[in-house]
Amino acid sequence: MSTAMEKAAILVEALPYIKKFYGKTVVIKYGGHAMLSRELKEAVLTDAVLMKYVGMRPVIVHGGGPDITNMLKRVGIQSNFVDGLRVTDADTMEIVEMVLVGKINKEIVARINRIGGRAVGLSGKDACLFEAVKKCPKVQTSEGEMTADLGYVGEISRVNPGIVTTIIAEGYIPVIAPVAVGERGESYNINADSAAGRLAAALGADKLIILTDVEGILRDRNDPGSLISVLRSAEVPALIERGIIEGGMIPKVECCLDALLSGVKTTHILDGRAPHSILLEVFTDQGIGTMVEN
Amino acid sequence: MSTAMEKAAILVEALPYIKKFYGKTVVIKYGGHAMLSRELKEAVLTDAVLMKYVGMRPVIVHGGGPDITNMLKRVGIQSNFVDGLRVTDADTMEIVEMVLVGKINKEIVARINRIGGRAVGLSGKDACLFEAVKKCPKVQTSEGEMTADLGYVGEISRVNPGIVTTIIAEGYIPVIAPVAVGERGESYNINADSAAGRLAAALGADKLIILTDVEGILRDRNDPGSLISVLRSAEVPALIERGIIEGGMIPKVECCLDALLSGVKTTHILDGRAPHSILLEVFTDQGIGTMVEN
Amino acid sequence: MSTAMEKAAILVEALPYIKKFYGKTVVIKYGGHAMLSRELKEAVLTDAVLMKYVGMRPVIVHGGGPDITNMLKRVGIQSNFVDGLRVTDADTMEIVEMVLVGKINKEIVARINRIGGRAVGLSGKDACLFEAVKKCPKVQTSEGEMTADLGYVGEISRVNPGIVTTIIAEGYIPVIAPVAVGERGESYNINADSAAGRLAAALGADKLIILTDVEGILRDRNDPGSLISVLRSAEVPALIERGIIEGGMIPKVECCLDALLSGVKTTHILDGRAPHSILLEVFTDQGIGTMVEN
Amino acid sequence: MSTAMEKAAILVEALPYIKKFYGKTVVIKYGGHAMLSRELKEAVLTDAVLMKYVGMRPVIVHGGGPDITNMLKRVGIQSNFVDGLRVTDADTMEIVEMVLVGKINKEIVARINRIGGRAVGLSGKDACLFEAVKKCPKVQTSEGEMTADLGYVGEISRVNPGIVTTIIAEGYIPVIAPVAVGERGESYNINADSAAGRLAAALGADKLIILTDVEGILRDRNDPGSLISVLRSAEVPALIERGIIEGGMIPKVECCLDALLSGVKTTHILDGRAPHSILLEVFTDQGIGTMVEN
Amino acid sequence: MSTAMEKAAILVEALPYIKKFYGKTVVIKYGGHAMLSRELKEAVLTDAVLMKYVGMRPVIVHGGGPDITNMLKRVGIQSNFVDGLRVTDADTMEIVEMVLVGKINKEIVARINRIGGRAVGLSGKDACLFEAVKKCPKVQTSEGEMTADLGYVGEISRVNPGIVTTIIAEGYIPVIAPVAVGERGESYNINADSAAGRLAAALGADKLIILTDVEGILRDRNDPGSLISVLRSAEVPALIERGIIEGGMIPKVECCLDALLSGVKTTHILDGRAPHSILLEVFTDQGIGTMVEN
Amino acid sequence: MSTAMEKAAILVEALPYIKKFYGKTVVIKYGGHAMLSRELKEAVLTDAVLMKYVGMRPVIVHGGGPDITNMLKRVGIQSNFVDGLRVTDADTMEIVEMVLVGKINKEIVARINRIGGRAVGLSGKDACLFEAVKKCPKVQTSEGEMTADLGYVGEISRVNPGIVTTIIAEGYIPVIAPVAVGERGESYNINADSAAGRLAAALGADKLIILTDVEGILRDRNDPGSLISVLRSAEVPALIERGIIEGGMIPKVECCLDALLSGVKTTHILDGRAPHSILLEVFTDQGIGTMVEN
Repeated sequence: MSTAMEKAAILVEALPYIKKFYGKTVVIKYGGHAMLSRELKEAVLTDAVLMKYVGMRPVIVHGGGPDITNMLKRVGIQSNFVDGLRVTDADTMEIVEMVLVGKINKEIVARINRIGGRAVGLSGKDACLFEAVKKCPKVQTSEGEMTADLGYVGEISRVNPGIVTTIIAEGYIPVIAPVAVGERGESYNINADSAAGRLAAALGADKLIILTDVEGILRDRNDPGSLISVLRSAEVPALIERGIIEGGMIPKVECCLDALLSGVKTTHILDGRAPHSILLEVFTDQGIGTMVEN
Repeated sequence: MSTAMEKAAILVEALPYIKKFYGKTVVIKYGGHAMLSRELKEAVLTDAVLMKYVGMRPVIVHGGGPDITNMLKRVGIQSNFVDGLRVTDADTMEIVEMVLVGKINKEIVARINRIGGRAVGLSGKDACLFEAVKKCPKVQTSEGEMTADLGYVGEISRVNPGIVTTIIAEGYIPVIAPVAVGERGESYNINADSAAGRLAAALGADKLIILTDVEGILRDRNDPGSLISVLRSAEVPALIERGIIEGGMIPKVECCLDALLSGVKTTHILDGRAPHSILLEVFTDQGIGTMVEN
Repeated sequence: MSTAMEKAAILVEALPYIKKFYGKTVVIKYGGHAMLSRELKEAVLTDAVLMKYVGMRPVIVHGGGPDITNMLKRVGIQSNFVDGLRVTDADTMEIVEMVLVGKINKEIVARINRIGGRAVGLSGKDACLFEAVKKCPKVQTSEGEMTADLGYVGEISRVNPGIVTTIIAEGYIPVIAPVAVGERGESYNINADSAAGRLAAALGADKLIILTDVEGILRDRNDPGSLISVLRSAEVPALIERGIIEGGMIPKVECCLDALLSGVKTTHILDGRAPHSILLEVFTDQGIGTMVEN
Repeated sequence: MSTAMEKAAILVEALPYIKKFYGKTVVIKYGGHAMLSRELKEAVLTDAVLMKYVGMRPVIVHGGGPDITNMLKRVGIQSNFVDGLRVTDADTMEIVEMVLVGKINKEIVARINRIGGRAVGLSGKDACLFEAVKKCPKVQTSEGEMTADLGYVGEISRVNPGIVTTIIAEGYIPVIAPVAVGERGESYNINADSAAGRLAAALGADKLIILTDVEGILRDRNDPGSLISVLRSAEVPALIERGIIEGGMIPKVECCLDALLSGVKTTHILDGRAPHSILLEVFTDQGIGTMVEN
Repeated sequence: MSTAMEKAAILVEALPYIKKFYGKTVVIKYGGHAMLSRELKEAVLTDAVLMKYVGMRPVIVHGGGPDITNMLKRVGIQSNFVDGLRVTDADTMEIVEMVLVGKINKEIVARINRIGGRAVGLSGKDACLFEAVKKCPKVQTSEGEMTADLGYVGEISRVNPGIVTTIIAEGYIPVIAPVAVGERGESYNINADSAAGRLAAALGADKLIILTDVEGILRDRNDPGSLISVLRSAEVPALIERGIIEGGMIPKVECCLDALLSGVKTTHILDGRAPHSILLEVFTDQGIGTMVEN
Repeated sequence: MSTAMEKAAILVEALPYIKKFYGKTVVIKYGGHAMLSRELKEAVLTDAVLMKYVGMRPVIVHGGGPDITNMLKRVGIQSNFVDGLRVTDADTMEIVEMVLVGKINKEIVARINRIGGRAVGLSGKDACLFEAVKKCPKVQTSEGEMTADLGYVGEISRVNPGIVTTIIAEGYIPVIAPVAVGERGESYNINADSAAGRLAAALGADKLIILTDVEGILRDRNDPGSLISVLRSAEVPALIERGIIEGGMIPKVECCLDALLSGVKTTHILDGRAPHSILLEVFTDQGIGTMVEN
């Protein structure tokens, strides 16, 4: 426990960062382990509330997590796979949307409100925030390369950020579920990292923060000391080629690059397993995780 | 099919009503049969969009309907009853909230957007729109009168309508699910009629419209011709005593009386089974259903 | 008489048009037969009020009609003519202005107010709305081509639309008499079609509607079935050359072309003898009269 | 001709008055001789423009004068009288309105615009500024006291000053003709003094200035030196009784009293025959004419 | 040095206080030792800047200190005393004003700007912020009680806080010197505690903080452990009577009582010798110094 | 003493000028003799107040004058000179700033407030209005050309006019002392002509008026009749070469040229010894002093 004087010192040390980010918009992709433990949930959302109170404009885009799998299991839906990709049929999509929008989103909203912020939850269907088209990836089948039909898996074709801007301007923290709307009103499941990146671009955000379950990008995946603190966008292709950025990290880094291209100032891949990693990134010089910038 | 000239005549006839309700807020409780058929859904929501375009401010509070029962069945939850009242335990409430907020609400939102309006869906948890306390009715048991524990069934203790006002002011149609938030962030199932009435009062609405599955209040329940078109609030107690207002209609009428007491100008119990009953009520003199007023 | 259900259907059918023209400015040149019968007056002005209530911004520029001739006769002023053109001397202009501004304009204003709109009448002198210079056409006389002195007949040299914008913004329907002001404060009689076209351009209107006493532009003047519904501006010169557009229709079409050049989206030559022709044009697909567009 | 230094001195002397009346609304009843000579017209309207430029908010309500009589003569209308009061039948009213609104009002507007102000002329029909009911005075006939039917002579039943406030706020000088609108849209001739007084009250004006053709109220009508500079409203009844205030001055003083009762701060009866009497009243201490105050 | 995690914890702990005081106005009387050491100056003004950045509205009223005495000495002005009170003659006042406004005030402004705030310095003469009348205390002389003439020592007769409100609204920190203006434009020296108290009242501030050179109010002046943390205004008279509040503390406590009477929520007497005492008072529960409240 | 009628005539004559400069910003460099006599002070500041009341936006930048020298003498500071230029060491600067900001500025503010304006005094340190760097002129010494160290004499490197704009918008007259702030918060003495010119440029002023102690620029310095009323900027270099513009007038004219380059419309060198020379320049055609324009 710090003394009163230490408290004062730390508050004073935060001043330059508070000044620097005053009025800035920060989109946080909230997912992974940080959605599991009660302590981490409390920490992430407290960080967002604190950011709001010191004049920043946090926006949360959340992922899904085990609640979806659990509910699919409960209702006895089994997933089909095409070349390892899960097919989201109409039945599955109904459950996915209910869990994302009706359960996870509202839990986050209620928690923020209890901490003392004022949150409003949205689906990408509200005010047509996220419009999507069906995603049709190429896959390898026994009959050669084919276009896969993954059902209601979409990619964002257009972002209409007006409702988010309105909600921010009225002092609320927007909390957004990664569901989009198709041309005929149908729902699409969209990748939450990608939704966060696109929304950050559309809002002209200053920062995009993606919470992950790793320390950041490591030069040597077995050595936490090999964290790359700052990564220039131009270095990314070489790192992918050399296998240093690999697997699930590749699309996350690509979200960062897209956001940077669209004008987002800095993007961050943070370790969501460390409590208050967002706060530390924003209010200290130390640099948690990997910052990707132009 | 009407001729062009008849169209002109009818548009001209609507003018006094358009003038009269310009800028007025109308809260619509949307439930019952009107949520079941595709045609009725389309009609109700088209009415709302039209109201918006001619300058009114419609707000929709929807109910649940068979989707909840179906989903409870799918996940194998059986309901317990106390003196005929269903107990909403934590498991049940989770499903109820998911279906109301994650499925029904978003379907309505997507449909309005397709018709050409701009809708934003909210739960009562968003921005703490509806705060609730647990509802503890007196029930008769074999051991005498007792206070029933119905689980997560709540009654609204406070309405914070700011977010709804914001959304209206930006030109959206708010669509609201009847879920409220308790002191510890827990969810409560609330009666949708009551939610609509309380919201109408908090917004200072001009009209509260409750869609039902009957013609309105009949003096003789077997004679549709005995519809009471206009009911003064002072007449209600006598009609209840005489059994003319009875059963499920009693709480609906009480919602109307409460809303009138809080300043809502007129309240309406309409037949949701007739397409465009809202439009007819608002834009013609004929008087569909029963208007309850002071 | 339509049934209640037909009314609902027709209101619903109007929705796409109401949406399409929401917030759009429409300048209506009101003249000819539509100023004579009580029924047609009521119809035209009711259309304007309805447009206002569903969110459009109608502006009325009216012509003169028989009232001027009658009053000139009453005060015993005889007109002189130069090559068939009437000379408006100072005495005549005084009467013209009094009738246009002090009688016709105020009758229209009072009628709109009675129908339920809120109208404000202006002359082109108010706030220097229309500035004019003397019009000096070439005429053929016995002594060869000469510049005619038609007295106080002017053409608009500048439009200052600020006062009209103010009045629209406050929710009024502006009603404007075709009188302009010269450099020394003198009054000029100006052509009402031309005033409407110039005002539409200055306001950045979406539509210019000119009410005439014919069905529109006919390919064969004896066959009402030969109406040209849509006319591209590029086709006009050929039609004039072939005599299909002729006489008094030529300047009206030229007003349309000028307005289109200045950014007005569509222009319409409608039959003012048919009640509610404006409403039908605006709120149905059928296309009354001739639309001239780029 | 004053020297430059004298000019400076006089501008400096005006400073306290400019300060005192900054932002204040002044309603000027403009009539009588001041409407006849070109020089006096120029002086009165220049005063109004100057008031506008130093931050005051002048509003002009004008009378009729000889133009009406001339035009009635020209069209051969003869007036009937009841007990000495002129009857304004429909024919007469048509001419009265045309002259007031279509001639006098627009001449004033054009003149102000030429001097460098920005004027907008209104009739009391515009935006229903003046609503009137028929005036039915008691008259003495050979058959005893009767209610006279004076035709379209009205008294103001309601003032809707919104349009005037709008026009002032946009920087224009409103110029208003004393015509009012009846319940069925018919026109009424109203007394201009009374219109000015009622408008001053409705606008919450600071000053009401009535231009007359006398020096003010004289204690001895044969002695210009007996001018009453300041008259308390409480003294009025006695002065009427003693015949000091008499004839046409009585209704003017009554307009002042009514305006004072409704919150207008000071009222003035000025000599319109003296050039710039308004300016002198407003910007010097000397006190021109008679000020009536509470 | 705290770890990153401790920093996060402390920032999180500050959240409830940041929320509580968001948008609140706090008037700080800055004087005594806190104006002497460079470290304390930096600490006090950093606290003010931090308060600004987390959404509060600090206002600084500063005192004089040794700079005045030094300058008086330099110019060779010797003070006269009446019954122990210093007389501020015209010569003295000139120096006092120059030092307060031209030196101390601008040093504070420049320092805040360097720390990263945006400050604007004002004297009580600017926009007539503080109007004063001469202070004429009763004093005991050899000839009995007399009214002392202390020269240009004034007391505030009126506060015109408009300029301060303007400056706050534009995001600046107002820094105010305790000089007031008399009826004839002359300057008065006013007590800075009193100026702070009166300004807090006029601004409707939430907090008045008076920095002193003691720990607060002690029950036993020799025992720092006897600090009274919270003092009810009703207890003050008894404490004065018993000599617990005495000497220079009496007028400070009276400033607090006056401010409380005028609607200031809480007032604080803090130890300006402890760095960041303001921050600790505002952002921790511990309670530094003595809070006086109703 | 003029008659009332002459007063009216003169006010009317000022009308075109009042119109022309309505809403325009005028920066006045106030210095020289006009700061010495009580009558001239009153005249200059009255002119500013009058300008404010007729809708202009005067801004005053004042110089120093004999008060500084007197105070330096009183505290026994002797000035050092380098090549004839006075060195402003830290001690001197402290006195200069105190006198400019704490005495002269506040006297002007108090005087304007007494005349009836509303003034707010600022130093260039407030809100970092004037940022400066040290001025290091080349000088000739016995050892050849060297860079002189004049101490705290600065030149403006940046103007942040936001605070001045705010103060003007709220209806105040800004009064600004020529002190600037350096990078480390230190104070710099800056030339008042130059401060006025730079501020005029930064504000986008319409006029820059520099009060001097001569009639203006004379072709023949011994002949007051040889005043150059209008000087084109292109003519300046030749006039300097020919010695017609010489000595202290050169930097003043250069301030004018700089201001013209930055968009100020006209600049004026006026005789501050003639009372109300500003008013005469602004409100008459006669042209006092020399106008420099592009």
